[in-house]
Amino acid sequence: MKEILENLIRNCRPYTRMGNVASYIPELAKAPGEVLAAACTDLEGKITQAGDVSFPFTMQSVSKLLSLGLALQTVGFDKVLSVVDFNPTADPFDSIMRLEMGQLHKPLNPMINAGAIAIVSILPFDSAEERAEAVLALARELCANEDLEIDRDVYLSEKNTGDRNRALAYFMKSTHCLSGDIENHLDAYFRQCSISVHTRDLSVMAATLAGNGRNPVTGHKILDKKVCQALRAVMITCGMYDGSGDFALKVGLPAKSGVSGAILAVIPDRLGLAVCGPSLDQRGNSVAGIEILRQLSIQHEMRII
Amino acid sequence: MKEILENLIRNCRPYTRMGNVASYIPELAKAPGEVLAAACTDLEGKITQAGDVSFPFTMQSVSKLLSLGLALQTVGFDKVLSVVDFNPTADPFDSIMRLEMGQLHKPLNPMINAGAIAIVSILPFDSAEERAEAVLALARELCANEDLEIDRDVYLSEKNTGDRNRALAYFMKSTHCLSGDIENHLDAYFRQCSISVHTRDLSVMAATLAGNGRNPVTGHKILDKKVCQALRAVMITCGMYDGSGDFALKVGLPAKSGVSGAILAVIPDRLGLAVCGPSLDQRGNSVAGIEILRQLSIQHEMRII
Amino acid sequence: MKEILENLIRNCRPYTRMGNVASYIPELAKAPGEVLAAACTDLEGKITQAGDVSFPFTMQSVSKLLSLGLALQTVGFDKVLSVVDFNPTADPFDSIMRLEMGQLHKPLNPMINAGAIAIVSILPFDSAEERAEAVLALARELCANEDLEIDRDVYLSEKNTGDRNRALAYFMKSTHCLSGDIENHLDAYFRQCSISVHTRDLSVMAATLAGNGRNPVTGHKILDKKVCQALRAVMITCGMYDGSGDFALKVGLPAKSGVSGAILAVIPDRLGLAVCGPSLDQRGNSVAGIEILRQLSIQHEMRII
Amino acid sequence: MKEILENLIRNCRPYTRMGNVASYIPELAKAPGEVLAAACTDLEGKITQAGDVSFPFTMQSVSKLLSLGLALQTVGFDKVLSVVDFNPTADPFDSIMRLEMGQLHKPLNPMINAGAIAIVSILPFDSAEERAEAVLALARELCANEDLEIDRDVYLSEKNTGDRNRALAYFMKSTHCLSGDIENHLDAYFRQCSISVHTRDLSVMAATLAGNGRNPVTGHKILDKKVCQALRAVMITCGMYDGSGDFALKVGLPAKSGVSGAILAVIPDRLGLAVCGPSLDQRGNSVAGIEILRQLSIQHEMRII
Repeated sequence: MKEILENLIRNCRPYTRMGNVASYIPELAKAPGEVLAAACTDLEGKITQAGDVSFPFTMQSVSKLLSLGLALQTVGFDKVLSVVDFNPTADPFDSIMRLEMGQLHKPLNPMINAGAIAIVSILPFDSAEERAEAVLALARELCANEDLEIDRDVYLSEKNTGDRNRALAYFMKSTHCLSGDIENHLDAYFRQCSISVHTRDLSVMAATLAGNGRNPVTGHKILDKKVCQALRAVMITCGMYDGSGDFALKVGLPAKSGVSGAILAVIPDRLGLAVCGPSLDQRGNSVAGIEILRQLSIQHEMRII
Repeated sequence: MKEILENLIRNCRPYTRMGNVASYIPELAKAPGEVLAAACTDLEGKITQAGDVSFPFTMQSVSKLLSLGLALQTVGFDKVLSVVDFNPTADPFDSIMRLEMGQLHKPLNPMINAGAIAIVSILPFDSAEERAEAVLALARELCANEDLEIDRDVYLSEKNTGDRNRALAYFMKSTHCLSGDIENHLDAYFRQCSISVHTRDLSVMAATLAGNGRNPVTGHKILDKKVCQALRAVMITCGMYDGSGDFALKVGLPAKSGVSGAILAVIPDRLGLAVCGPSLDQRGNSVAGIEILRQLSIQHEMRII
Repeated sequence: MKEILENLIRNCRPYTRMGNVASYIPELAKAPGEVLAAACTDLEGKITQAGDVSFPFTMQSVSKLLSLGLALQTVGFDKVLSVVDFNPTADPFDSIMRLEMGQLHKPLNPMINAGAIAIVSILPFDSAEERAEAVLALARELCANEDLEIDRDVYLSEKNTGDRNRALAYFMKSTHCLSGDIENHLDAYFRQCSISVHTRDLSVMAATLAGNGRNPVTGHKILDKKVCQALRAVMITCGMYDGSGDFALKVGLPAKSGVSGAILAVIPDRLGLAVCGPSLDQRGNSVAGIEILRQLSIQHEMRII
Repeated sequence: MKEILENLIRNCRPYTRMGNVASYIPELAKAPGEVLAAACTDLEGKITQAGDVSFPFTMQSVSKLLSLGLALQTVGFDKVLSVVDFNPTADPFDSIMRLEMGQLHKPLNPMINAGAIAIVSILPFDSAEERAEAVLALARELCANEDLEIDRDVYLSEKNTGDRNRALAYFMKSTHCLSGDIENHLDAYFRQCSISVHTRDLSVMAATLAGNGRNPVTGHKILDKKVCQALRAVMITCGMYDGSGDFALKVGLPAKSGVSGAILAVIPDRLGLAVCGPSLDQRGNSVAGIEILRQLSIQHEMRII
């Protein structure tokens, strides 16, 4: 496996020169576009990695899986489904117009920003800090890494420039889809996006989702099987923003991307995968990261669809 | 004229039972739906009024004429046209979706909320208080009434519940259509909406616009002719929200409505008209107010189109 | 007046080099962009003209006034208002999306293509030929020119390439906004768009609308005053496509444009104006034509707003 | 397996009383809402069925898999991807607005009507009849049933009332997404929708897709593995109209529904499933059909995600 990953990194390195590093959050714009790393963790807990594995990056939208998982596990499916739908959309992740067009104004799914903010708002804790702490605690468990922390510079950068998310949140408040203190919800959301990880961490988290909630490194059972199924279902239909269908065609795996260049992919009952390459396509997905997963799925028959 | 207005009030009183008082701002929801008042001021400064003339109400969207007039008069047409277009829209006044769809994300005109907030943001004063004071000062001059004040209860009610306007403003900030402190802009906007008037005040303001900027009561020249032409142009195409075309068909006059039930209408070089009836149609326009203006325009050949 | 028009043609000729001739109908794409002509007719029937006055052009969207006038005059306001609204829109003239978004799917006004097709469909004649003949007959009366004919090449070109209009019509049929034979309605619509005129013809038509339905050249009373008021109302709010508000700001007159470069403008109770310059701005309005009307309205105090 | 299916039919029969039979095509409106049938075929070719298995129904949108498969197999992936994207959408299957909003006006995926019509238009045959024949021939092979025919009454009913599809097609022609004779394309599309089948036929087709193109009944290799992967990818992200995400959550299988009440579902390398229950939810999917698949996937661990 080590050799496979190293070959893939070598083959896909040229793809890092396509696309662009995310520019809308100043701290993210500093990321080096040429970075590329990959890791996988099997269900015995064996971790393999290759490329720029010491490059730290923030989870960004990958963290939406954390808060959704935590919400499903704590407040339950019915409450979650009362604030978001689970259907994919062709709109970009930060789009606002369908909130106005929809009859119920409910976010279409928990992987677009509006839906993720709605999910954060129903976590059963009062303050932004407590909610962010609970999400961070879950991240540490899923990644088998007690050292995970929030990157304060990225968090502050997101908070200072998060006006689109503010617009989404205040719009939802105006249509009674969101209640409570908006800046508080947004603060928790910006914090979870800023959890700093390495590819190996995400590969362990992916393996935990592949193993129906049991972390193969620590052996701890963290999430219910039903919660993991829900996360994988939302990943395959909505996980790669408005490029989710294209990814299903090319790679055929449930996955979730973040604008830091991260992609976490799951082969149920078999393997967890993670890649990071900060150069993004127009939809916000890592160009080289998708290519690694595409080659892997073809060469090693890893598609599940 | 007194008799004409009194007859109209009598004839149109039944229309106050159609429609509904605005409910989205708690303070406005308290308005008595059965109120109906009308006033006109001619270019010699003669004021005639009928109906519930002692009923005070806030200007709401009618105040958009004040800030637009002030902006055109102080920072000029070019600056104003750099932040808003002047074209009508079929979208409701608080709609956000076209801000996302438009290529430039610029508000379509200064009579929808997004455009009005953009106008407030370019007024040449630093603080919200100063900007609101300047708008209030212009209101006093245009209405020939030094006693006009901001209704503090309505202002606080708007500020507490203005989440849709917050969404519009943060969205515009995220697309670089608005800069500076958003809560500051919104504060100035909520204040101007809350200026308390009577129909006679608005009829004097209307007469000043009819007289190309000269207040017929005080004799003061307040606005340039070109500014008054611009205000009348935007009134006839955009003044009655997404019902502007229907109003042009029925009444044929430049006019501006507010969700307090106010309508100000202008017959250029001839007369200023104002009505107030808090029961609104689905677009946010006074049902009985439109009916008064419709009957007046038919019976007394007041259409300009 | 002759001298005024000649000066305007001279001053505005450079504007014919801005913009582009309409390209979406092959026959229209052949029009010479440098052509510029203007004409006016007063209420005594005196016609003055200047520029390329012998240039023939098709009415295109200006013909929407003919079918609307004919419908209002024959089947009446109630029937007309049952198939279209009268409110302006920010959407381009051939846009389809609001037909889907609207609750009733009714075209927003009779000046966009969808609305104009709906109007043609309710004219009280069976065949496309009869409806087109009735519209042509009205054109001859309003223009005081018995020689007006349909330009067969333009008509066939429109018919062959009118797929957007076909889409609008079939969409309306699918939502029960339109009934009957769609190709028949479209045929009548393409024919009316292809009526060939000169600027002097349009200026007489404009003067007839200015004179509340009495043709100042022939002395015939053709349309009711109420119908002329409705046409002028729809012109000032919707006549210049999605640039109607901008035109009201710049020129302040009810007007209707066509993609052949024609603009017909009305000064009620005073004058009819017509210009033609085939170079169009992005909204489909004649660049030089708007400039002539703008200069005229400023220099000679012709604004009505 | 027989017993399992019979139990499911019994358990889910009450769900046939929820929802409504499709009404927009007159022939479909005649379907009996209480019908319910299920069938499965394993990769050895063993067919099991239960319920109203002799009820014939038309494929409707399930036929979109046929034309897409045929196009991928004959003209290839590049050509297919030049006329449609493969991304899911929150818009209903017959929606037109995104065709106007998109920068390229390309249909979002081949499972919405616009995309399916675009696919039909690139099949490498001249006439509508030939294209429909080729699709029918593929249906016969995939279903292992030489007797399949087009239901002429349904076909004519669709053709007579298919105005929404006509609007989609003419719109695409106007934006150069579709070329050639539109009525011809639509005719081929209406014919393929009208192929009449039983649940056992669809279960064999599903098993062929599960077996990567080899029909387990006839043993014939019909489609490439890569084509089957593409079909399954588009099924899991787009196959259940705008309810695809909800179905992935509940059932976790690639599937395709039709408004006749049919659903075809695939367990790769394992099983083909088909159900039919004409009572539909608001998105156009069989209520009882979804419930059968949901119970089956839970009780027998059939989810692949």
